[in-house]
Amino acid sequence: MNVTGIIVEYNPLHNGHIYHINKTKEITKCDALIAVMSGSFVQRGEPAFVDKWSRTKMALYAGVDLVIELPVIYSKSSAEGFAFGAIATLDSTKIVNNVCFGSECGDISLLYKIAEVLVYEPYEYKQYLKDYLKLGISFPSARLKSLNNYIIYHNLLNVNDINVENILKNSNNILGIEYIKSILKLNSNLKPFTIKRVVNKYNQENLTGNISSATSIRKNINNQEVLNSMPEFCYKIIKEEIKNNNAPISLKSFEDLIYYLIRTKSPNELKNIIDVSEGLEFKLKQAAENTYDIFKLIEYVKSKRYTQTRIQRILINILLNHTNDILYKVNRRPEYIRILGFNNKGRELIKMMKKQSSIPIISNPKRDDYELLKLDIDSSDIYALALKGNKKLSKGDLKTSPIYWQL
Amino acid sequence: MNVTGIIVEYNPLHNGHIYHINKTKEITKCDALIAVMSGSFVQRGEPAFVDKWSRTKMALYAGVDLVIELPVIYSKSSAEGFAFGAIATLDSTKIVNNVCFGSECGDISLLYKIAEVLVYEPYEYKQYLKDYLKLGISFPSARLKSLNNYIIYHNLLNVNDINVENILKNSNNILGIEYIKSILKLNSNLKPFTIKRVVNKYNQENLTGNISSATSIRKNINNQEVLNSMPEFCYKIIKEEIKNNNAPISLKSFEDLIYYLIRTKSPNELKNIIDVSEGLEFKLKQAAENTYDIFKLIEYVKSKRYTQTRIQRILINILLNHTNDILYKVNRRPEYIRILGFNNKGRELIKMMKKQSSIPIISNPKRDDYELLKLDIDSSDIYALALKGNKKLSKGDLKTSPIYWQL
Repeated sequence: MNVTGIIVEYNPLHNGHIYHINKTKEITKCDALIAVMSGSFVQRGEPAFVDKWSRTKMALYAGVDLVIELPVIYSKSSAEGFAFGAIATLDSTKIVNNVCFGSECGDISLLYKIAEVLVYEPYEYKQYLKDYLKLGISFPSARLKSLNNYIIYHNLLNVNDINVENILKNSNNILGIEYIKSILKLNSNLKPFTIKRVVNKYNQENLTGNISSATSIRKNINNQEVLNSMPEFCYKIIKEEIKNNNAPISLKSFEDLIYYLIRTKSPNELKNIIDVSEGLEFKLKQAAENTYDIFKLIEYVKSKRYTQTRIQRILINILLNHTNDILYKVNRRPEYIRILGFNNKGRELIKMMKKQSSIPIISNPKRDDYELLKLDIDSSDIYALALKGNKKLSKGDLKTSPIYWQL
Repeated sequence: MNVTGIIVEYNPLHNGHIYHINKTKEITKCDALIAVMSGSFVQRGEPAFVDKWSRTKMALYAGVDLVIELPVIYSKSSAEGFAFGAIATLDSTKIVNNVCFGSECGDISLLYKIAEVLVYEPYEYKQYLKDYLKLGISFPSARLKSLNNYIIYHNLLNVNDINVENILKNSNNILGIEYIKSILKLNSNLKPFTIKRVVNKYNQENLTGNISSATSIRKNINNQEVLNSMPEFCYKIIKEEIKNNNAPISLKSFEDLIYYLIRTKSPNELKNIIDVSEGLEFKLKQAAENTYDIFKLIEYVKSKRYTQTRIQRILINILLNHTNDILYKVNRRPEYIRILGFNNKGRELIKMMKKQSSIPIISNPKRDDYELLKLDIDSSDIYALALKGNKKLSKGDLKTSPIYWQL
């Protein structure tokens, strides 16, 4: 069976994702589609807009056959950690042949060449890098120039001029390169494909008709107009969650908790949180003292070096108490595959995985048997605090069975 | 100058407190009245209904000349710790002659005799105790019987029959005995007075006309009828706070935080919180897993041994992260006297204290110079999370000057 994997957040699922699913099926000619999806916390450093079970339903309705969870240690990581976790998860299933992702450039060879240079670091590339660094140029900028020179010099792309900097300005190109880097590092057989994204701006705040950004959809969810940008079944799922006060969930939902944690932790304790360094612990404490709105706090702390997304990921690390002693796990393969939902074809895929996968397949976790699973369950317990009624109960992750849905 | 001290929470101030103030002035014939008042967290194991600055205003309007803060380490303690902190604070001013408190029995000699036996533990009393314990009777019950026997046998009260058990059933009698015990232990010159309380039931939930319990007033604050039970100026202060969403504050305001803390702390970490023992850490974790309402959680955990109030105090200890390593401070004298508010006479009292007091008088703390002050400031920072606007800012305790108000 020709199986393709996609890496998603569906926060929430919209027409751009439908396009991605259909195009993926078309160009990879796959017989089945597996999505590895972020759970309670997403890569922007935010809690998911609606919970993972609702988003699993959306994925199944949209034509995904099997939804598996990207463990939280990866899902709220930088592009590198996120991509590594997702690729390693798909690779560990041992039944996925292709991976297909959106990118701004839509050019798989270009992304592949860049990834190769970054992973294998050929001699000339390293020389360029050394020379630029000697000139006092910052590392990110020296890396860009060296990449550019190396690719042009070796005519890797049969072009006379490219601008790597422009390519690396786009977040989905960056993610794409990271996916390929992970494939190379893992010696994986996954074959990468890319689709040119229809939406240009990932962070666009206004609805833009048929295809809008997830950001704009979250922002305008109470505006009927979003129905132009997302399938009706997604809209209905979200509306139901909103009716029950279980959406929208945002950093604002955890404002008091995050303020509490920053105010009560010592600078040294904060410094031990993943990615807090260079005195950021003091800046965070100042911000929590002098502001009382989470977005003002982020504004207060962010800088060119600590971008908004990076600060948000740090806030999530604080909320989840992810300290440096678990950081190494981001570079380790996942310990299990957690099923969130499936259809009939998905059930076949699960059977295949159970035979072929290198790691256990978990449908109904009974206990937090694995370290990463414990982190997932704990993170969902914290996410649950923003929900209402029974969803607020703890250990929901141990009590919820995967969703089965067949068209 | 004949100065009387009173120990208050004013949560909120009502007609019963006005009666207490007037009666205190009458029977102690004092020239000035000092109140030592709980700050952000009160003895029932709850955050204060309105913040301490609003309650300071109420006290000044009601005729108190000087309001000083009972440090939080004492204010959310058991009767013993609360009483010790309050008496030690009044004693440390070195300008207070009397202390006058309400009690259900209204009989100072009775309370005094009981306190004396408990502090000095005379030989015969100890013999009774030993004998009862030998019979397999529980310690609290053996202590009651021994007290009873000793007092009757020595005819300490010139009565043939008293029932110490009935006296010790009432929370204000218990507090009164604790006040006197502290006076004895501290070798203080404070002269104790008591006034028979007009309200019978401390926890009465319904308004009962002119004199109602603070509990019933908190419960019915949106009912115009409370105006029968409290001075109009108090009602107005509270209404203003409610309008600004800064009241009512309750355990409910900290529900998510408390759930978060219990869910994320390990049993061992919980065990290190003041008064968590005998496996309560596991019960707390179970409760936080199986409920999602703070009052249900308390219901789940409480038992004959761990009463509702005791559980609530434990929840506050969890919220404030008061661990066993600071427990010893409850039995130490306060390190400073913090002024919350004063009138003209109060200003004179401050001058006198500055000359005579054994510890520093603090009006505008610049930093958290003292360990207990740091705990106070931290606790107010946490309390502030339930407030709105500028009141939500941190270090409010360092930025707010004492309230001056003269009729």
